[in-house]
Amino acid sequence: MTRVKQAVILAAGQGRRMGGRVPKPLLRIAGREILHRTLSALRTLGIEEAILVVHPDWRSAFESFLKANEFEAHLVFNVEPERGNGYSLHLARSAVEGEFLLLMGDHLYGTELLQDALRGKGLVVDPDPKYVDRDESTKVRIRDGRVIEIGKRLENPDAYDTGCFVLDPSIFVVTGELAAERETVELADVVRRAQLPVHVVSGEFWTDVDTPADLRRARRHLVALAVKGTGDGLVSRLINRRISTWISEFLVERLTPWQATWFTFGVGLLGGVLNLVSPVAAAAVYQLSSVLDGVDGEIARASLRASPLGGWTDSVLDRYVDIFYLSSLALVSKLPAWFWPVVAWALLGSVLVSYTTERYRAAFGEDMYRAVPAMRFLPGKRDERIFLTMVLVFLGLVQELFWTLAILTHLRVLLTLILGFRRRTA
Amino acid sequence: MTRVKQAVILAAGQGRRMGGRVPKPLLRIAGREILHRTLSALRTLGIEEAILVVHPDWRSAFESFLKANEFEAHLVFNVEPERGNGYSLHLARSAVEGEFLLLMGDHLYGTELLQDALRGKGLVVDPDPKYVDRDESTKVRIRDGRVIEIGKRLENPDAYDTGCFVLDPSIFVVTGELAAERETVELADVVRRAQLPVHVVSGEFWTDVDTPADLRRARRHLVALAVKGTGDGLVSRLINRRISTWISEFLVERLTPWQATWFTFGVGLLGGVLNLVSPVAAAAVYQLSSVLDGVDGEIARASLRASPLGGWTDSVLDRYVDIFYLSSLALVSKLPAWFWPVVAWALLGSVLVSYTTERYRAAFGEDMYRAVPAMRFLPGKRDERIFLTMVLVFLGLVQELFWTLAILTHLRVLLTLILGFRRRTA
Repeated sequence: MTRVKQAVILAAGQGRRMGGRVPKPLLRIAGREILHRTLSALRTLGIEEAILVVHPDWRSAFESFLKANEFEAHLVFNVEPERGNGYSLHLARSAVEGEFLLLMGDHLYGTELLQDALRGKGLVVDPDPKYVDRDESTKVRIRDGRVIEIGKRLENPDAYDTGCFVLDPSIFVVTGELAAERETVELADVVRRAQLPVHVVSGEFWTDVDTPADLRRARRHLVALAVKGTGDGLVSRLINRRISTWISEFLVERLTPWQATWFTFGVGLLGGVLNLVSPVAAAAVYQLSSVLDGVDGEIARASLRASPLGGWTDSVLDRYVDIFYLSSLALVSKLPAWFWPVVAWALLGSVLVSYTTERYRAAFGEDMYRAVPAMRFLPGKRDERIFLTMVLVFLGLVQELFWTLAILTHLRVLLTLILGFRRRTA
Repeated sequence: MTRVKQAVILAAGQGRRMGGRVPKPLLRIAGREILHRTLSALRTLGIEEAILVVHPDWRSAFESFLKANEFEAHLVFNVEPERGNGYSLHLARSAVEGEFLLLMGDHLYGTELLQDALRGKGLVVDPDPKYVDRDESTKVRIRDGRVIEIGKRLENPDAYDTGCFVLDPSIFVVTGELAAERETVELADVVRRAQLPVHVVSGEFWTDVDTPADLRRARRHLVALAVKGTGDGLVSRLINRRISTWISEFLVERLTPWQATWFTFGVGLLGGVLNLVSPVAAAAVYQLSSVLDGVDGEIARASLRASPLGGWTDSVLDRYVDIFYLSSLALVSKLPAWFWPVVAWALLGSVLVSYTTERYRAAFGEDMYRAVPAMRFLPGKRDERIFLTMVLVFLGLVQELFWTLAILTHLRVLLTLILGFRRRTA
């Protein structure tokens, strides 16, 4: 783990541009408060002690938040927030014991960024930030690995200030000097005076939230980053996820993951029932349910509400949607009696594809899609089967569909067994 | 873990009664050497340092065994094994550093017995041993928690000597005195002189292997103890396991678990093919495959060869046996076309019952049958479904069979989901 055991989070700002009914760190984005995300990431990294510098007006808001979410934090009060965030940092000095992480209460940080930061020292900078409004961001100029200039209006900057620092208590000598010299002490002043070394990161998620536009952009990124990825087939990557993330972005603050799971299940069953009326419409609804199937997981992960119970339920319900839709399609298609074994094996195959990979995870405790990269290229994942189903139903090729499923799925099971063997006996 | 870090294993005897081609600790019982079982159990308990007292004639046999099985042990040589096993213990004195476990190289010890032993001190005794030939066992008389008499010919003994001791280096004062006084020093002499305290255990597996009859009895017990239990239905407990353990006892030294898995798969497929000739014979063969299904796991566990890869493969093959047999039964039964959806759902249910519990294990990393005791009482486990299939086919009730399976299995899935929810949200 890391040598760093404490994190100081500056949360004394008033957040006037965001409405100001709650302090900015307690603003919910994609269903969770900014501070919740930061404290969760710190917990994941083994940093259990958080020091929050807050305005005393918001004391009860922060305390209720911490209690409700079972977080522990040490509160430090800043009665003069107008003296700047460098002054807020100075106030944390008595609670700090060694090297510490310094974070901004209104920034979102991916766990990967913080983990990377802990390998360095000083100000963490990003030469090519992907998730921020660069015009509004703080820029830095670097010489010999140290910051020589910092500010919002810097031309041709070398990198951008991520709002993440790894510091040690010697920084309080600098903050003390500055606090004695002047009324307002911004972090930029501290960085300039200390000529902090920089630690360069790249590609990882971080952003700050200053305006409603920032908030919308951050929500979109959080949902996009919540796409699970492993186990997604071609159709999912090219079509389904583009639509589902757009829906999730809209629903993440309106629906719980469980509501999304049951709604998607309902749409899937509706697809099966619709076969009685119009197999073409039913196939389209079935494909829609495949798109929606991404939403519950995206909402759950984006709002830090993912649970194994949700994953378990979703998997079992998916199997029932598949066999219900395919059964009803077979029933209304007036297939000859001799053809029914093909139907039965097509349905069984659609369950056994999932059975084989889940039973692998049960046996070995690892996700086969992560452990065996070749699995990602095997055709016949659920998103692909459902899309193929829609296309073949549109073309009126129902028997061809069942033949294809009956052969493709069991072949996929066989290949999965072979790949599993190769992995576990190599 | 335990304070005990070392185990001394007395393995200098010649084992003449067993043929004498290998030293007794290297005799294979149920596919694994006695010493392999002891060293595996010690490893499980966190006792990594074994001190083996052996005759120098067998040096290379022990060294090859240790190397081939990737065990580490310190060898101490006894060039005068005729001086008795108390003398062998004395020779181990320079390798011992603190409290240690003393074990006999020709005894089998269940891991539970050793674990229990580590909670006590002195000689571990069993007042009611279940797995030994009492006539041939060493008996003890106890007063005030100490051994006052020990020997094979003791009348009305208080307990039996398990051949397991927890000692400390002070015992070497006693062995040293005895070795100076007399030529032959048996452990019984040491126990008598030291008036060792006793630690009483009961019900756990331990036995010694002196004669070919002992060996056969030990093999039977090892196979019986290898029955997995969780997930077994009524039919398995009352019928299948009684037959399968009898078969496993015969095959454990003749077949690998993998051979048993593929053979059982072959018998299951044969059941499906036989439907073309005689559904009654086929149903009997299907039930036979259900009995044989226990054998691979029993052989694997009894011979310490159980592997997740074997479990994974066995599960997937079981699903294929079920759907192949039931498909072929449906095909030869000349069922009306409208009935085929019932067949399809019966087959799907037989897969989904297993899917739901395995997906639970994948999600939560725990066996649902262990975690939720009520699961054991839900009817519709595989052994029960197969037995029911045989009975209904014998009675000519094929449609009734498929109706029953179609309803019973999906109901079981629903109840599994409910029980899983109760467990994970309670």
